[in-house]
Amino acid sequence: MAQGTNAGHVNINSDLGESFGPWVMGNDADVLKIVRSANVACGFHASDPMVMMDTVKLCVQNGVSIGAHPGFPDLQGFGRRAMNMTIKELEACIAYQLGALQAIAALHGAKVTHIKPHGMMGNMSAESADMSEAIARATKSIDRDIIFLAQANTEQGKAARKVGLRAAEEVFADRTYTDTGFLTPRKETNSMIKDAAKAVAHVRRMVDEQAIYSTSGKRIPCQVDSICVHGDGPTAVSVSKAVRDGLEAAGIRVVPLTELPSFKH
Amino acid sequence: MAQGTNAGHVNINSDLGESFGPWVMGNDADVLKIVRSANVACGFHASDPMVMMDTVKLCVQNGVSIGAHPGFPDLQGFGRRAMNMTIKELEACIAYQLGALQAIAALHGAKVTHIKPHGMMGNMSAESADMSEAIARATKSIDRDIIFLAQANTEQGKAARKVGLRAAEEVFADRTYTDTGFLTPRKETNSMIKDAAKAVAHVRRMVDEQAIYSTSGKRIPCQVDSICVHGDGPTAVSVSKAVRDGLEAAGIRVVPLTELPSFKH
Amino acid sequence: MAQGTNAGHVNINSDLGESFGPWVMGNDADVLKIVRSANVACGFHASDPMVMMDTVKLCVQNGVSIGAHPGFPDLQGFGRRAMNMTIKELEACIAYQLGALQAIAALHGAKVTHIKPHGMMGNMSAESADMSEAIARATKSIDRDIIFLAQANTEQGKAARKVGLRAAEEVFADRTYTDTGFLTPRKETNSMIKDAAKAVAHVRRMVDEQAIYSTSGKRIPCQVDSICVHGDGPTAVSVSKAVRDGLEAAGIRVVPLTELPSFKH
Amino acid sequence: MAQGTNAGHVNINSDLGESFGPWVMGNDADVLKIVRSANVACGFHASDPMVMMDTVKLCVQNGVSIGAHPGFPDLQGFGRRAMNMTIKELEACIAYQLGALQAIAALHGAKVTHIKPHGMMGNMSAESADMSEAIARATKSIDRDIIFLAQANTEQGKAARKVGLRAAEEVFADRTYTDTGFLTPRKETNSMIKDAAKAVAHVRRMVDEQAIYSTSGKRIPCQVDSICVHGDGPTAVSVSKAVRDGLEAAGIRVVPLTELPSFKH
Repeated sequence: MAQGTNAGHVNINSDLGESFGPWVMGNDADVLKIVRSANVACGFHASDPMVMMDTVKLCVQNGVSIGAHPGFPDLQGFGRRAMNMTIKELEACIAYQLGALQAIAALHGAKVTHIKPHGMMGNMSAESADMSEAIARATKSIDRDIIFLAQANTEQGKAARKVGLRAAEEVFADRTYTDTGFLTPRKETNSMIKDAAKAVAHVRRMVDEQAIYSTSGKRIPCQVDSICVHGDGPTAVSVSKAVRDGLEAAGIRVVPLTELPSFKH
Repeated sequence: MAQGTNAGHVNINSDLGESFGPWVMGNDADVLKIVRSANVACGFHASDPMVMMDTVKLCVQNGVSIGAHPGFPDLQGFGRRAMNMTIKELEACIAYQLGALQAIAALHGAKVTHIKPHGMMGNMSAESADMSEAIARATKSIDRDIIFLAQANTEQGKAARKVGLRAAEEVFADRTYTDTGFLTPRKETNSMIKDAAKAVAHVRRMVDEQAIYSTSGKRIPCQVDSICVHGDGPTAVSVSKAVRDGLEAAGIRVVPLTELPSFKH
Repeated sequence: MAQGTNAGHVNINSDLGESFGPWVMGNDADVLKIVRSANVACGFHASDPMVMMDTVKLCVQNGVSIGAHPGFPDLQGFGRRAMNMTIKELEACIAYQLGALQAIAALHGAKVTHIKPHGMMGNMSAESADMSEAIARATKSIDRDIIFLAQANTEQGKAARKVGLRAAEEVFADRTYTDTGFLTPRKETNSMIKDAAKAVAHVRRMVDEQAIYSTSGKRIPCQVDSICVHGDGPTAVSVSKAVRDGLEAAGIRVVPLTELPSFKH
Repeated sequence: MAQGTNAGHVNINSDLGESFGPWVMGNDADVLKIVRSANVACGFHASDPMVMMDTVKLCVQNGVSIGAHPGFPDLQGFGRRAMNMTIKELEACIAYQLGALQAIAALHGAKVTHIKPHGMMGNMSAESADMSEAIARATKSIDRDIIFLAQANTEQGKAARKVGLRAAEEVFADRTYTDTGFLTPRKETNSMIKDAAKAVAHVRRMVDEQAIYSTSGKRIPCQVDSICVHGDGPTAVSVSKAVRDGLEAAGIRVVPLTELPSFKH
């Protein structure tokens, strides 16, 4: 598959623009110096039009590619509560949020070039072909050049390719994996990687071998186009910085999603 | 000015898609058989993604051109309460809503071809060059072919033309005007025209003469590109129907905004 | 148990005050002439402070006892979508809505005398002892005289009594039951009773025998303190009216929940 | 006036519980160690049921008296945008929020003992007898023992006393005053007092003399029952702490509003 041929390149992405009204969340200014692609909240689980304006502006200033990060309509629950929606409602919900961000990007002469579902919408769609296809289908109707940033080895990437949308596969810098290739649940003591050196080694191995290694050592082959990092928590920014520095020190180019060899036109 | 040369043609528009979640408002199915352009609520003062989906679909089925009807973010107050916003917030607010509708239209292979601010955002911008220019500027950044559907003889049309956006000027079928060319306030007993025959004569005169006549008989020259009708209230649909029939009986073609001679490419 | 001794008396209740902002729902004025207790929406799934004011006022004018009808915080979904909440969040959510209604009732010199969870919160708690106990516990902390209006034979009534709150058990006038004592799902063709005469016979038998009869004829003993009627749909008000008239014609007194013999102090 | 006889005592209050869903605001844990009364946000401009639960619990643990801090229904604008409301809507809005907090307080065996309108609702009512009377009237209908915490020398205190509610008058620790007795607008360079020693001297003089001194040195007699401090910004907590320490060092007892001699039963 064409997307696999990204030898020597990788993307780093993070969720950004998660403030709302008077409430600030995250360290966007710091994170934008590390990542090359931003998943921008679209007002349903976080953000509002002004936060989106400010976030898009910062992305443009930092040369970071812009993605839509749509979520369930639940500000209070931050899009982390399961919500029943018909497939048609989900398509409407995706279109609404993606379109809103596209228009705000247009105010800055910018474009939305990828999409990644947030929180529970992300988790549910990772396991649901129907949901993932709805997200991909709605996206393709709006702009067929948008890349679906998918959790590696889940229904998301499969659905995108089936629908005719390009997909990038992401792994996590600061999370471990089980033998089935899923993230170790947060309640497990070994779910997080808080040590910068360990995170760097973890990421380097995944990128070099295009595979996930579980905590028990099992190797799960996997396309690794992008590394997801976080900006919240006491160690997040420093771990993220170390990951980027570690990749570059190894001669790997860290680029926006749109600049990965497999996605360049 | 090019927009004035619509001899023999006029548009009829109405606000549609104002339901929300489980709450139904208006008689969209009936109104869509009368109007040729719809101002579709975008989720801030009314509507939600599914209502927008259903409304766009009905517009497409009825050959009715689609406009964005953005409002202040105040569902409970239906966008009718004044709200302080900076010019930049207003631009973000317009872009967000317009983009959301554009994307939902794209799901149906349709396009948003005009914009008309709702409620208090409409009233405040009619008197404010700054607000009208912000609306026009944001719109133009997103799609320079979108038409600003302006309250006749207000700052809206002026701002649109100044910014470089095309404007259509609208008058009301069921409302009277004062000597200053503004709508007679609703608290006045003669503010509304509920008699179908009178509404027809009122509209025909405005279209034929390209002028508003005040209740005292004063003639105020004015471009008349579109007639705004309403779908709520006991007499609204029948009055609206009579207006369309009256115009067509007089040999005037009632067309979508985009089909007015001055706007056809 | 004391609550069973309501010979010759029954309550009729309905969900009211479900409008929101500019959107009207239901026929509250008509329904208030039939029912003796109202379940008033509290702003999370429907209603707002002004709608609550108007609804409480109408209840007082009609001598109808006032109950809180709390729901999940989801206006767009009308409280009908499942929502994950911890038990503590549910208690907070119940307290917030109940307190809001109590204070608005106080503006009219009235009191909230019962509580009934709405929509999906009602359905989920009917099957969950934990949820029902949380609702009952929060309610009792606020006012130990409030009656829990429970779906007959479910966890709700059990939880209320366990916690030390009085419970009234309700059956439905226009819905049929399965052999397990639950409502026949709406998708079944025989789930609804739209014929007034049949509804009257259905209700009379449940009240006379203090039992539910399933569609197959199975008799399920059950305390019947209250009859739930609906105000929406083409036949709802006339069926509700017939039910009340039928009960009174049979010499049964239709009274507010607080006037049932088992609840009078 | 009875409320003036608080010699040797004063209250310190602050706005608390202003987080919302996943968004944290303020340093409530630190501020609660300094203040003796908390103005708790009620879900319209900030907070939600769980935040209210947690805030009330912290107040109880710290022996801090609890007040309702109702605002306009505008989370995104944090209740700082002007909003048109009829007097009746305002009463409903006050009752709703006050009742919600009362019920949540009841879950912790606590009571709401004062009320203070937030943000733009506070500013508008300070200059409007009608609005202040509506707030006082709604409050009195719900609990006639609640104290109206008023901005000193404004319509709020007057309205409360006229309606028959007790009022406490507050001054600000970190803000200066103009010759008319109002706060120096924030845009003026000398509007804030960020130096702890100056804030202490400023507060001590107001408490000792029961008067405000303007920036030009004008003395404006004024009842001083309570000092408002803030918890946000880099210097706020340390300034607040210094103010409390300074008052106590001068032998003044810093007590909950309800423990001021004029309010004790």
